[in-house]
Amino acid sequence: MVIVSETMTTARTDGGPERVVVLAHEKFPDRAKTATGVLKYADYDIVAVLDRDNPGTSAADHRDDLPDVPIVASMDDAPEADALLIGIAPIGGGFDETWRDDVRTAIERECDVISGLHYFLNDDEEFAALASEQGVELNDVRKPHEDLSVAQGKAAEVDADIVLTVGTDCSVGKMTVSLELVEAARERGIDAGFIPTGQTGIMISGWGNPIDRVISDFTAGAVEEMILEVGDDYDVLFVEGQGSITHPAYSAVTCGILHGAMPDALVLCHVAGREHIHGYDSFDISPISKYVDLYESLSEPVHESSVVAGALNTSHIDDDSEARAAVESYADELGAPATDIVRFDADEILDAVVED
Amino acid sequence: MVIVSETMTTARTDGGPERVVVLAHEKFPDRAKTATGVLKYADYDIVAVLDRDNPGTSAADHRDDLPDVPIVASMDDAPEADALLIGIAPIGGGFDETWRDDVRTAIERECDVISGLHYFLNDDEEFAALASEQGVELNDVRKPHEDLSVAQGKAAEVDADIVLTVGTDCSVGKMTVSLELVEAARERGIDAGFIPTGQTGIMISGWGNPIDRVISDFTAGAVEEMILEVGDDYDVLFVEGQGSITHPAYSAVTCGILHGAMPDALVLCHVAGREHIHGYDSFDISPISKYVDLYESLSEPVHESSVVAGALNTSHIDDDSEARAAVESYADELGAPATDIVRFDADEILDAVVED
Repeated sequence: MVIVSETMTTARTDGGPERVVVLAHEKFPDRAKTATGVLKYADYDIVAVLDRDNPGTSAADHRDDLPDVPIVASMDDAPEADALLIGIAPIGGGFDETWRDDVRTAIERECDVISGLHYFLNDDEEFAALASEQGVELNDVRKPHEDLSVAQGKAAEVDADIVLTVGTDCSVGKMTVSLELVEAARERGIDAGFIPTGQTGIMISGWGNPIDRVISDFTAGAVEEMILEVGDDYDVLFVEGQGSITHPAYSAVTCGILHGAMPDALVLCHVAGREHIHGYDSFDISPISKYVDLYESLSEPVHESSVVAGALNTSHIDDDSEARAAVESYADELGAPATDIVRFDADEILDAVVED
Repeated sequence: MVIVSETMTTARTDGGPERVVVLAHEKFPDRAKTATGVLKYADYDIVAVLDRDNPGTSAADHRDDLPDVPIVASMDDAPEADALLIGIAPIGGGFDETWRDDVRTAIERECDVISGLHYFLNDDEEFAALASEQGVELNDVRKPHEDLSVAQGKAAEVDADIVLTVGTDCSVGKMTVSLELVEAARERGIDAGFIPTGQTGIMISGWGNPIDRVISDFTAGAVEEMILEVGDDYDVLFVEGQGSITHPAYSAVTCGILHGAMPDALVLCHVAGREHIHGYDSFDISPISKYVDLYESLSEPVHESSVVAGALNTSHIDDDSEARAAVESYADELGAPATDIVRFDADEILDAVVED
């Protein structure tokens, strides 16, 4: 059984995967944030996306911000590659049996398989046997270290300022905002680092603890451990948040990251116009001011922090001026600068963060 | 490997342990809440407590509310028994090597061993081999079910009203208050049930998910599952809370229970005069009104709830009238009825809960 961070770190230093196929059946691109995240930010080449709904098209046909990568219907049609990466994560993290043929074919073609599912491929008898036979690795990225512990309340002691992305819901762009902020900060000459907390972030950065998979008592501790490990090497660390403090299922993870990271500043991420918790339609998104109050008042007893800026995802709004208006309205509700960091640029948020 | 709840349920139906020795070295009674909880509330007989600091005394010598059970220095001095229960849980849940002789002796004497530590006795090579040789069971109570999942946000749909104990810190009496409220409610003819969330509660009640040990994504789901399982069988369910929403290490668990349980009413538990988070002296206990605000505002987006009563632990105050004054002052800060449910009685809290 392979511990993810060691695998990924090793993979990085010895070259790692070079040509990767990304599985994203029926959910590409808008419900495939792992796939699109890897397409945009990973260093290795993506040679194809598997989506049986859109064969013959290109990723760039579906969204402007994605590279020109061919979409094919199955692994049988994919070009030569050395790894298959599972690029979608259903609620609950199960394995969809309609993917079995693709994973089997990939292993038979001597591809490693990289997965961030709760369901570990190494525990699947067929895949484990086949992988062993073919000499390939099944990398279950979500499998946490064995040696985690409880938080000590020390993350604030590192040299770097800590900036945490928090959200009104899942899938609002916290990872993307964090990664864009790292890039924008580096362009300004700021020594910025990224703390990944979920499978895509870990796949992209090559190390990290999958916080939603650790033992609940160690949620804060697993974040703190990463910050203590690299926090003196940077001027600012952007920590990828998870879930939302009002989420009926995932708020525990959100709360643990908030207290474990001891952030100096928070960036509140939201999708313009979203009214209900994704997948939990009977639960409303609260007013924006409620999120500001909750995140700040919950931080305060452990480490005082404030929402210094907002990141609004306007990707479903076609018209730029409408998107601008949505951002302005969001900034008003927030009482802080805001932007769509992907559509426009990072300046408003970065100014607020750096100034803070 | 034994799944705890099955083990305990089986143990209960086939008679279970009858004569139990409880290990509580150097921490009995005030830092041994598992030991004292089992002494007070479990159905089976406790035949001895192991505490090398107090051999020759009785549990009742140390605290009025404990039964007359002899304390001995080691398992060598313990009377006949069929199980050894680890009654203390250090921060982090590790195994203290100074206990090894007692556990070894217990297994050699054909006792089962029941443990709520994070460190699983079944994973200890010496104990596993010896237990197998002697035909005894190592019950790792903290080992969670394998089939947990994410919360659906449905706990509020059960027939029972849900009452959750929340706290200003760890070790303030949430389990005790919940168990005392169950007893008091039953005395009034109310059909009351208990939802255990920690190792002692599980040891006492014979079933339950150890919430601090589940995968963080499933924290709320593991509580919800228990409530959905028994929630239509009772008029009111008292859910054992964990940690505190301001705890630097454990707040994730607290938050997951709050959202997973979807409580109708909250009882805020506190220790009179405690000023710092236990074991985290640089973190202050916040003002009581801050806890009321935080628990209520954090509940609201998932299920509206309010702090209807307070439970104050005054066990370290000798004088009854001083304790009464502390309770009154606590009720004032809280803006709700309060009492010390162990020292006085449960009426104030139960009235507030039932009326709510």
